[in-house]
Amino acid sequence: MEILKTKAKMQAWSAARKRQGKTICFVPTMGYLHAGHVSLLEKGKPLCDELVLSIFVNPTQFGPNEDLDAYPRDIDNDLALAEAAGTTAVFLPDNTEMYGENYQTRVALDHLPHHLCGKSRPVHFGGVATVVTKLFNIVMPDVAVFGKKDFQQLRVIRQLTEDLDFNIRIVGGDIVREPDGLAMSSRNAYLTPEQRKSALCLSQAIDIAKTQIAGGATDVIAIRDKMTDHINGFDHTAIDYIEFCDPVTLDEVETIGGQVVLALAVKVGKSRLIDNALIDPPQ
Amino acid sequence: MEILKTKAKMQAWSAARKRQGKTICFVPTMGYLHAGHVSLLEKGKPLCDELVLSIFVNPTQFGPNEDLDAYPRDIDNDLALAEAAGTTAVFLPDNTEMYGENYQTRVALDHLPHHLCGKSRPVHFGGVATVVTKLFNIVMPDVAVFGKKDFQQLRVIRQLTEDLDFNIRIVGGDIVREPDGLAMSSRNAYLTPEQRKSALCLSQAIDIAKTQIAGGATDVIAIRDKMTDHINGFDHTAIDYIEFCDPVTLDEVETIGGQVVLALAVKVGKSRLIDNALIDPPQ
Repeated sequence: MEILKTKAKMQAWSAARKRQGKTICFVPTMGYLHAGHVSLLEKGKPLCDELVLSIFVNPTQFGPNEDLDAYPRDIDNDLALAEAAGTTAVFLPDNTEMYGENYQTRVALDHLPHHLCGKSRPVHFGGVATVVTKLFNIVMPDVAVFGKKDFQQLRVIRQLTEDLDFNIRIVGGDIVREPDGLAMSSRNAYLTPEQRKSALCLSQAIDIAKTQIAGGATDVIAIRDKMTDHINGFDHTAIDYIEFCDPVTLDEVETIGGQVVLALAVKVGKSRLIDNALIDPPQ
Repeated sequence: MEILKTKAKMQAWSAARKRQGKTICFVPTMGYLHAGHVSLLEKGKPLCDELVLSIFVNPTQFGPNEDLDAYPRDIDNDLALAEAAGTTAVFLPDNTEMYGENYQTRVALDHLPHHLCGKSRPVHFGGVATVVTKLFNIVMPDVAVFGKKDFQQLRVIRQLTEDLDFNIRIVGGDIVREPDGLAMSSRNAYLTPEQRKSALCLSQAIDIAKTQIAGGATDVIAIRDKMTDHINGFDHTAIDYIEFCDPVTLDEVETIGGQVVLALAVKVGKSRLIDNALIDPPQ
């Protein structure tokens, strides 16, 4: 496994392999890898000849009051997990390598960022779209794998890949959960033991909605009220949003008529946790 | 010379050549080719194995009151000139091919567009940056050639290529002029015979500035006054701007201390013409 710290070395590494006719699968991350990231590497491994992981805590996707400085880091463990999962190269740049002094170019989407997490994180998806555009040009992959836990991010990436004509296939990786249902997240590391118990409210609220919809419920307000009551029954929780959306446009729906994505964000202590599920109404 | 009308075919054409180890030079245009465009093709021809021309009148870089519908077109002549210059493939998409129904991604620069032409054409450089990003991903060139006549555009492209980490070398092609000094432009086609005479004011005003600076003049206001007087002496002319700028940041300078780009835009009849020169003060 090679570790490449500059854009020039990463591009040269990829270009050399492409000249040999090899294909490249790419898994971009902000590091502090957990079983969810490992599942993305494992999903990508059989898809191409080479498997590239990037680790970069991208400052431009954090707002001024967010947790950039506190974002957890553990490079040694990341590299061990990456190697064990069959990663062949790790791109590990620092901030000055990614954003030079005169840096001024931004990639933005008109509609998708104005839903869900974008409402409370107004700079987030512009930062994501920009850094992913850069990473795609640096790694030059044939396939890129993104987790479905960040459902809105995955939609943004699919749209930007299509709109900007990247010749890259985007693959979504399933959410990986702890045995009790909590979705894996680097931010789970912030939770105290007591908050860890409260963090279960997200997956449990999704289960409540699934049960309601399976039983024929179609009114989003009524379903959301039940979810809200459940989450508010836990200590240290503050709901950011609970929304039922069209899975492509992310426009909110008021009545369950076809497949929806149910997405929610809840602050548990200082950690803002997200979870989601695609739900089909009963046939 | 192959003519490719879809993004998928163009990408497949380029990908196949890259697998063969061939390099690709790219000249993006809006068509209605003249000797200036031909010089870009000729400049690009020896740089790579393949030479790709694109012809696409990009609607997103025209403002609501600009000349999108009137923009001149002559595909048959374009293809003949391209073939004679050694072009090996022409990418010739239509609007629906380039911008799908749900299209929503934009590339924008923070600073460079707020100078020179960007002041009177506020949407222009965002449209240019976005379409060039798309074209780079569709053609996947190793080298791309842009004319120096669009000096600000060339700066925008260089900055965006660096910022978004495109693995592409940007080459500038010199301005090609008519024998009397008028810079070649597709928009010269709009000029009446009388306006054609007035169009000479741009290159003549540049010559005045060069003479002034060679003679030791350093005060931009005084030099600009002489240029303004000269241009206003022609019929059908309306100055949009005359600016002396730092060639990298495009920030305006008030005193000639080092190399500057002198850029100007003048409406002659209905045609908005531009010209520029890099000028060094005397040693």
